[in-house]
Amino acid sequence: MLGRTYESQNCSVARSLELIGERWSLLILRDAIFAGATRFGDFQRSLGLASNILTTRLDRFVETGLMERRAAPESSYEEYVLTEKGRDLKPALIALTHWGDRWAAPAGPPWLLEHSGCGGLLEQLTACTRCGTVVPQDEIATQPGPGAEQPVSSA
Amino acid sequence: MLGRTYESQNCSVARSLELIGERWSLLILRDAIFAGATRFGDFQRSLGLASNILTTRLDRFVETGLMERRAAPESSYEEYVLTEKGRDLKPALIALTHWGDRWAAPAGPPWLLEHSGCGGLLEQLTACTRCGTVVPQDEIATQPGPGAEQPVSSA
Repeated sequence: MLGRTYESQNCSVARSLELIGERWSLLILRDAIFAGATRFGDFQRSLGLASNILTTRLDRFVETGLMERRAAPESSYEEYVLTEKGRDLKPALIALTHWGDRWAAPAGPPWLLEHSGCGGLLEQLTACTRCGTVVPQDEIATQPGPGAEQPVSSA
Repeated sequence: MLGRTYESQNCSVARSLELIGERWSLLILRDAIFAGATRFGDFQRSLGLASNILTTRLDRFVETGLMERRAAPESSYEEYVLTEKGRDLKPALIALTHWGDRWAAPAGPPWLLEHSGCGGLLEQLTACTRCGTVVPQDEIATQPGPGAEQPVSSA
């Protein structure tokens, strides 16, 4: 919930940011998605984040269906486990990682994303579902979709 | 500049968020990248955003090299034009759009991203640069990279 003022934006980027755009949210999800973090203490140790903020973020992920809270096996801890909706953010996190590696990592990438099958580095491609080609970034157009009826902006 | 407390995070996601994670930043970049917005008034009409916030965001994009400020041709306006660094955020915005389309668009996608060559819808694929296969999301691993020497967390 990045701000109610996004409500006038009928756009999937804006709606995504309502769910994951608050400060620290994407780093919590990064730890869950790439490091397999599930426990409150895992996130807190990795992020050094105040307990109340971390609690608020995790509760919100549960409320919006990105994570499920459940009892950890054979312990008294609770776990926060990604749902399919949460796991499905992996491509967005990979894209942000690659952008940061390219533009904000003067010492080189801090972490490399690999194909666990062969150890090769990953790349993301934009492909066309009709003609099957890899689409250059300057051949991407937008069209109003089925959910476009709501005005884009109140302005 | 999402918060100085991200400084302890040696991670390209965190560094990306330092540059683009502030409230409204990604929506401003969306308008620039997908709608070709360049003028202050374009962004303001689309976003309904207070002038001081929009000014701060655009100034910051110029300062961090995501945009260049220049005189618009044949007018007295200034334009904010994406640099290569700014344009290179397109894959991350596509990924966020697709996630929002799937998980936060009950009436269907407000906007469709198409291949301008043939009108087909786009998909993003994660591929391996070594073996060339499309990599399933559960076959992605992380390894420390050349920039990993700085501690990941101060905790």
